[in-house]
Amino acid sequence: MAYNLLKGKKGIIFGALNEQSIAWKVAQRAVQEGAEIVLSNAPIALRMGELNKLAEECNAPVIGADVTNNDDLVNLFTKTQEHFNGGVDFILHSIGMSVNVRKSIHYTENNYDFTHKGFDISALSLHRVLATAMKMDAINEWGSVVALSYIAAQRVFPDYNDMADNKAYLESIARNFGYQYGVKKKVRVNTVSQSPTRTTAGSGVKGFDGFINYAEKMSPLGNADADQCADYCVSLFSDMTRMVTMQNLFHDGGFSFTGVTQAVIEQMEK
Amino acid sequence: MAYNLLKGKKGIIFGALNEQSIAWKVAQRAVQEGAEIVLSNAPIALRMGELNKLAEECNAPVIGADVTNNDDLVNLFTKTQEHFNGGVDFILHSIGMSVNVRKSIHYTENNYDFTHKGFDISALSLHRVLATAMKMDAINEWGSVVALSYIAAQRVFPDYNDMADNKAYLESIARNFGYQYGVKKKVRVNTVSQSPTRTTAGSGVKGFDGFINYAEKMSPLGNADADQCADYCVSLFSDMTRMVTMQNLFHDGGFSFTGVTQAVIEQMEK
Amino acid sequence: MAYNLLKGKKGIIFGALNEQSIAWKVAQRAVQEGAEIVLSNAPIALRMGELNKLAEECNAPVIGADVTNNDDLVNLFTKTQEHFNGGVDFILHSIGMSVNVRKSIHYTENNYDFTHKGFDISALSLHRVLATAMKMDAINEWGSVVALSYIAAQRVFPDYNDMADNKAYLESIARNFGYQYGVKKKVRVNTVSQSPTRTTAGSGVKGFDGFINYAEKMSPLGNADADQCADYCVSLFSDMTRMVTMQNLFHDGGFSFTGVTQAVIEQMEK
Amino acid sequence: MAYNLLKGKKGIIFGALNEQSIAWKVAQRAVQEGAEIVLSNAPIALRMGELNKLAEECNAPVIGADVTNNDDLVNLFTKTQEHFNGGVDFILHSIGMSVNVRKSIHYTENNYDFTHKGFDISALSLHRVLATAMKMDAINEWGSVVALSYIAAQRVFPDYNDMADNKAYLESIARNFGYQYGVKKKVRVNTVSQSPTRTTAGSGVKGFDGFINYAEKMSPLGNADADQCADYCVSLFSDMTRMVTMQNLFHDGGFSFTGVTQAVIEQMEK
Repeated sequence: MAYNLLKGKKGIIFGALNEQSIAWKVAQRAVQEGAEIVLSNAPIALRMGELNKLAEECNAPVIGADVTNNDDLVNLFTKTQEHFNGGVDFILHSIGMSVNVRKSIHYTENNYDFTHKGFDISALSLHRVLATAMKMDAINEWGSVVALSYIAAQRVFPDYNDMADNKAYLESIARNFGYQYGVKKKVRVNTVSQSPTRTTAGSGVKGFDGFINYAEKMSPLGNADADQCADYCVSLFSDMTRMVTMQNLFHDGGFSFTGVTQAVIEQMEK
Repeated sequence: MAYNLLKGKKGIIFGALNEQSIAWKVAQRAVQEGAEIVLSNAPIALRMGELNKLAEECNAPVIGADVTNNDDLVNLFTKTQEHFNGGVDFILHSIGMSVNVRKSIHYTENNYDFTHKGFDISALSLHRVLATAMKMDAINEWGSVVALSYIAAQRVFPDYNDMADNKAYLESIARNFGYQYGVKKKVRVNTVSQSPTRTTAGSGVKGFDGFINYAEKMSPLGNADADQCADYCVSLFSDMTRMVTMQNLFHDGGFSFTGVTQAVIEQMEK
Repeated sequence: MAYNLLKGKKGIIFGALNEQSIAWKVAQRAVQEGAEIVLSNAPIALRMGELNKLAEECNAPVIGADVTNNDDLVNLFTKTQEHFNGGVDFILHSIGMSVNVRKSIHYTENNYDFTHKGFDISALSLHRVLATAMKMDAINEWGSVVALSYIAAQRVFPDYNDMADNKAYLESIARNFGYQYGVKKKVRVNTVSQSPTRTTAGSGVKGFDGFINYAEKMSPLGNADADQCADYCVSLFSDMTRMVTMQNLFHDGGFSFTGVTQAVIEQMEK
Repeated sequence: MAYNLLKGKKGIIFGALNEQSIAWKVAQRAVQEGAEIVLSNAPIALRMGELNKLAEECNAPVIGADVTNNDDLVNLFTKTQEHFNGGVDFILHSIGMSVNVRKSIHYTENNYDFTHKGFDISALSLHRVLATAMKMDAINEWGSVVALSYIAAQRVFPDYNDMADNKAYLESIARNFGYQYGVKKKVRVNTVSQSPTRTTAGSGVKGFDGFINYAEKMSPLGNADADQCADYCVSLFSDMTRMVTMQNLFHDGGFSFTGVTQAVIEQMEK
């Protein structure tokens, strides 16, 4: 069902890769709710080619950007402002990559060049996006920025590796830049801490299957899926949530506040 | 603007007293978004008479209930189920009262009969409402329950007195009953931790003026008002937020995650 | 090993029942560290008679007190002040009881008379103890009060029933009264959130065995035992921790900040 | 007063610069409690020369190490193991530096080369220290590692700039490496979140005076000073706190759980 919640709003969606991506679903859902969007991803992701399908469906331009490169971000916002003839009202940051994870390096043996690289892409990129936008005055008053996070920022999930630390830093940027952008222009910045989700990124984590089943058993409502996450992000982009800022918002069927469930206890007794 | 976010949904709103009440605004906003509602409040509040005005405006029956009385709650849900010819999809719990606050008794000298009384009304009432609803199967699948809370549940605001402890207990019930109702029927339960708001209840707290100004200065977006709170509650009743449960959600313009602001530092230097 | 950490200090230990009790261990450990103590428990617990053994070992008077009765508490502090010829430096509050748990009533069907009773004993008792002490000026400057809590105050453990809500309220009192007593007389108040422990109280919780095993598997250092808890409480009574107040301190081998362990994942795959 | 709390224990203290440094006080206090220590700091800090005074007083070797350089850390642990003829029992990480802060660059305009540099020194260095130690098996069973943090990791203090994000990352490493080192060798890792303190590092933050006064007024016990912090760190190195791990522990006179104080309200009314 559509409500026109984002009617007249413009936005940028970072990180849609394929139909499994949360960003893909958010793009579709935002358009369905009346928004106009620009799609962005890293040059390498664009070359894979699936994004064009989404672009067509959403009638959205694709503007590539390496989020670790300031010039790319200036270019993205310049073209976006031209396209919309003005600023944007919302941004989705769904970006994360750890070289240590990709190379299956154990957390205690991480390579620090890889750590810096993953940190730059997964965490610092949010600061770059916001700083570039602020400098160019590219987000309209009462705009809303959402970045996707994960509960490994609060509690240890050993296989999540250095992405846990990256998400902690990401959430800190949301708070600190959220303060600055709030004071300056009423722009709000939040992170959404989503259930483990079967995306290309999620599946790359070692032991993902065992883990997603555990999360399902530990969530009173079950794991939240990508479609539900899209719904939630849209609510945060809408005018219904204007005073929500600088927060990490769990979207996980109750996992984060559940210590143990009957289902897990039973499994432990086997 | 209205989006039909609650089209076809039915709900109960507890605690509307007069036009300043958050519950009053939530009732209006829910109806504007397509919901049908029942209004409830304590017998003494009903006698004050203003609620009829809202009832008329919202085309809603008023069913009195003392929330510390199980029979009253059974009666309320029975009549509500008759009225709607079925269960409800959402409930707002906006109920709180401390005798110690009313009588200006200092926190360290609280009278424990008064503490029990305030605890029963302000905190345990949420358990009673949910337990009665569960027994009578009065909330539909994927229903949403919101109770209003305050950040004094996490940090000390000396003049908030024993209401701080009551809110901590209230949030605990939201978690614990939220687990049970989630597992059983996908019903979600959350609390909204709202900025200090100029309502009849809020104004009763000693030093409220000094405090609301401090909160305004400490919130990057300023204090959230009752209308904005109504918007947020509606988003939580809607299908956009189905996997959000067992949480305390801050709705406060950034107050909760701000350690200090420039405005406060300047005031401290005077 | 003993360090004389509490040399010259006087304290009251509430809640020692038998050798398994955490309070029992704290009493022994405090005395070993040079403290003089008074033991207190409910009249019914005294009748069971084991406490005399501890009293003899610790050379400590036993002064009964029903912690829901103001007169009993006044009597306790009067006699304690006489005994020590002055105030105390530390207090351990290890008190908790839920009638709903004892009678195996499900959380969603709790009897509210029982809830009030358990709330009075388990939570409000901390307020009574502190308020009585403040009125009688019975705690010396820089004194330290510790109450035992459990992580069910933050996350749901379904079988813990209404004790979860009581612990949330208890922790709130520690914050709020900790503020008041800190401002007034530099007295600090904290709660210690202890691993599940095989005490008479702990074992009364349904499904305790399954649960304690789960906690063991979820704690990188394993569950903390009663002896270790006694060590930790002594450190909090000592002068080494004077600026720690109004906090809930986890003492649980890492359980609270662990999302999942390899051991649990493996069990889930069985 | 001394208790022999660290009798027989060996440790490494990073970050003592001059008599104001918290690390300086921790070194003195640890030795007073019976420990033997090694002092380490960056080559540039050593050249300033004051550290030799402390080294003499503590009868401790000084081993320079750039904590962003793996070879330096290997050298440090090799020499330390030779010196002690074995591993260490505790480590203090009191290291932090932000180029953006030093150059007075506003948070929203941070230079990312500077951000990476500060991140490497202030946050990632804890991972390097722990990873090097683990590889060389340089920490004894039940060892204890403490890193100093600040509440800007949880709430926004605008002038703290990118150090806030660094501290969030540092605390995340403490959790994640604490899990790994706990499972492997019962080593615990925590951060201590200390009141603002008049050290060389602290005073470098813009508006420090206004801020430290605010913190003093917002802390029921007042700000914790460096001596008290040293006491607390020693308690965490001792065997009294063996089951405390993966936590961020506030040491701040109650600041972190205080929403507002009477003193601040009065100032706001001026």
